[in-house]
Amino acid sequence: MTPQIDPRAGAAVKAADRAHVFHSWSAQELIDPLAVAGAEGSYFWDYDGKRYLDLTSGLVYTNIGYQHPKVVAAIQEQAAKLTTFAPAFAIESRSEAARLIAERTPGDLDKIFFTNGGADAVEHAVRMARLHTGRTKVMSAYRSYHGGTQQAVNLTGDPRRWASDSASAGVVRFWAPFLYRSRFYAETEEQECARALEHLETTIRFEGPATIAAIILETVPGTAGIMVPPPGYLAGVREICDRYGIVFVLDEVMAGFGRTGEWFAADLFGVVPDLMTFAKGVNSGYVPLGGVAISGAIADTFGKRPYPGGLTYSGHPLACAAAVATINVMAEEGVVENARNLGASVVEPGLRELAERHPSVGEVRGVGMFWAVELVKNRETREPLVPYNAAGEANAPMAAFAAAAKKAGVWPFVNMNRTHFVPPLNATEAELKEGLAALDTALSAADAHTD
Amino acid sequence: MTPQIDPRAGAAVKAADRAHVFHSWSAQELIDPLAVAGAEGSYFWDYDGKRYLDLTSGLVYTNIGYQHPKVVAAIQEQAAKLTTFAPAFAIESRSEAARLIAERTPGDLDKIFFTNGGADAVEHAVRMARLHTGRTKVMSAYRSYHGGTQQAVNLTGDPRRWASDSASAGVVRFWAPFLYRSRFYAETEEQECARALEHLETTIRFEGPATIAAIILETVPGTAGIMVPPPGYLAGVREICDRYGIVFVLDEVMAGFGRTGEWFAADLFGVVPDLMTFAKGVNSGYVPLGGVAISGAIADTFGKRPYPGGLTYSGHPLACAAAVATINVMAEEGVVENARNLGASVVEPGLRELAERHPSVGEVRGVGMFWAVELVKNRETREPLVPYNAAGEANAPMAAFAAAAKKAGVWPFVNMNRTHFVPPLNATEAELKEGLAALDTALSAADAHTD
Ligand SMILES: Cc1ncc(COP(=O)(O)O)c(C=O)c1O
Ligand SMILES: Cc1ncc(COP(=O)(O)O)c(C=O)c1O
Repeated sequence: MTPQIDPRAGAAVKAADRAHVFHSWSAQELIDPLAVAGAEGSYFWDYDGKRYLDLTSGLVYTNIGYQHPKVVAAIQEQAAKLTTFAPAFAIESRSEAARLIAERTPGDLDKIFFTNGGADAVEHAVRMARLHTGRTKVMSAYRSYHGGTQQAVNLTGDPRRWASDSASAGVVRFWAPFLYRSRFYAETEEQECARALEHLETTIRFEGPATIAAIILETVPGTAGIMVPPPGYLAGVREICDRYGIVFVLDEVMAGFGRTGEWFAADLFGVVPDLMTFAKGVNSGYVPLGGVAISGAIADTFGKRPYPGGLTYSGHPLACAAAVATINVMAEEGVVENARNLGASVVEPGLRELAERHPSVGEVRGVGMFWAVELVKNRETREPLVPYNAAGEANAPMAAFAAAAKKAGVWPFVNMNRTHFVPPLNATEAELKEGLAALDTALSAADAHTD
Repeated sequence: MTPQIDPRAGAAVKAADRAHVFHSWSAQELIDPLAVAGAEGSYFWDYDGKRYLDLTSGLVYTNIGYQHPKVVAAIQEQAAKLTTFAPAFAIESRSEAARLIAERTPGDLDKIFFTNGGADAVEHAVRMARLHTGRTKVMSAYRSYHGGTQQAVNLTGDPRRWASDSASAGVVRFWAPFLYRSRFYAETEEQECARALEHLETTIRFEGPATIAAIILETVPGTAGIMVPPPGYLAGVREICDRYGIVFVLDEVMAGFGRTGEWFAADLFGVVPDLMTFAKGVNSGYVPLGGVAISGAIADTFGKRPYPGGLTYSGHPLACAAAVATINVMAEEGVVENARNLGASVVEPGLRELAERHPSVGEVRGVGMFWAVELVKNRETREPLVPYNAAGEANAPMAAFAAAAKKAGVWPFVNMNRTHFVPPLNATEAELKEGLAALDTALSAADAHTD
């Protein structure tokens, strides 16, 4: 499975990287990127031949794993046929990708505007909402991530926003439900839900309902901690939006395309937003692609009046061909069902069992193949294993956890005091068990840092 | 060359497009996208077998034409090897693309931050400039285009900005040199240059030099009219930036990678910016890719302190492999030289000859394979053939021009009262002459609308 590799080639790759590649979200001199030689299915390997089970799906996007042969073949075929074409034309793979996506999106979200990734999907969704309503403000949640461009990062409710905060004019932030660290002094999910809705509606009434264009929420907030909303919350937000004429945007960049065990997480809750953003899983990131699924009413706003936004690679033929192949593979191979079934039968019980044995585990939560393990110093006080936004020495306990996981042969997703268990959706039972076993070892390293 | 095609397949592609694809910059019910069946080199064809010589290079991005066999093969090989991998790792095609780009960028722009396209390149360049200087305002020119996301569109100096203007806080616009429609009552290029610099510096002094993070300029403004700056202008801006500690950003998304007959347009003027954005030509858009080339001083700002920006597909392996192949093809096949040589020996004299014979041509201007033909009602008054930002009936003369061009077998680039002659950089002499002949016919349609 692992082809022949040459460690010297790895050194050259690494040297050129350090000389010329400027990396996302990083202090360039303080990073030491692993040179990766190859990947297949749920695994990747470095130039020394060390293999890792990828518990991160990249940045939670390779939903069908690496190098799925059918999608690779589809990319090769489309490359031979028509790699690229400008957005103002009708192109087979573009039409077919839009049709397959629209077939799966909830409600009447039947028009697809394609972008290159998640951030620009959010940027365009916000513009559509503002122009549709004639209003300016957009509400977003603390504990959220919506992308790295100026508007998207300012909608983001994590510290990555702070550096760009000069442009947060027009953004109003609120707290969404999260019982484990309730902002509402709630003791039950019902209470958390009711109070979160009351908080949102009161905030809207004080901001001025007629000033608010949109509310944007990740259906299941991902990077910020995989906080599955309590039953009724999203339906409640839908009602509030209807009451005040606010556009409801669900960001499914991470949660969409099977991650939660449904094609879209909105289906878990029976909620239909007005706009839905997607990227990542749409083609497992094999070629950059994102987009916005648009309701009939909002599409109509731009029926006779031009939509004032666009991009050179909107509906890129190669990216769309990868989406067509990915969606077909997911349907044929039951990938969404696999996420739902093994999520429930293997991942959830496996993580709950680890939680029982490891004092560092404060909470396990999630759905499908979308799980967070929240690490704490102390289960009673729920004090996080590392402080909010920790770096350097303060982050040592999480660094120890990550190092132990890698030593045990898995690549872990780590964000603040959490690790996320987010493997490819078509991971096998054996792979999931391998991942859980490695996590067991790594959690022992975290346990050493509890009170 | 044109493979077998099935008109019924074209109808299906069109129907699915109309049902599900939401198009960039368009009133969705007022467009009628041509279904394109295939493309090769400088040509594409529809499902009725009608072939067009593409004078637009897509949206001025297929610099090596469609379906270059070496780049197609490189995409196929990379797809077989490693389609995608997360940005925090060192990956062969990512390292090699960064190295090849850094080798060609001017001065010490040796670190490459990869994005998915041009707009996000601009977004990140602006963030880098703001954090590097600790200042907020960014200056950009009227008659410019910088992309469709919120920050990028607000730096854009064309009407596409208006709908999103609520977020233009922090943007200061100025006039750049353009002798044909001088804002400075200038009669010579020297005067235009001196006055444009004086205008810029005075504006800076009135805005407060210490409040300005960056000046962003397209090296040669593209979409807005291919206005080659007069000698000394960009060097003058460089000096002003140095005087006031302002970051100089050159946007080479359209002008870069050979379009002007140099690898980068900055080389035409011997100017080194602090940041340079690119996209399009970097891999001829075969796979979405853009980026920012970063000076040593700005890279150092993010040496020990994290750069607070990023994106899932930064340095996408498939996109980078396409860049490596494209750059190598351009070097091996002398594509940049071809643009320079045939631009000077065929395109420029051809267009000037047309200008002499067609009263609708007000001005021909450009460099390399980057030419604008400005159409006017009246050569004396220079009144544009259609008003600024015209639509519908008011735009009929340009619509007539475009229809005549298509009938003559070329696909024209049309923006307001201009057509741009921007074929692939490796177009042959025969193709260029074919394009000029078709333009001759189409200009006769425009002539009918002159006084
Ligand atoms: C919910 C959500 N929205 C938007 C984004 C931004 O996507 P991209 O990184 O492709 O710009 C992400 C990325 O992680 C995300 O998780
Ligand atoms: C100079 C310039 N900057 C930025 C952009 C935006 O690039 P993209 O459409 O890839 O977002 C363009 C696109 O035409 C451009 O010409």
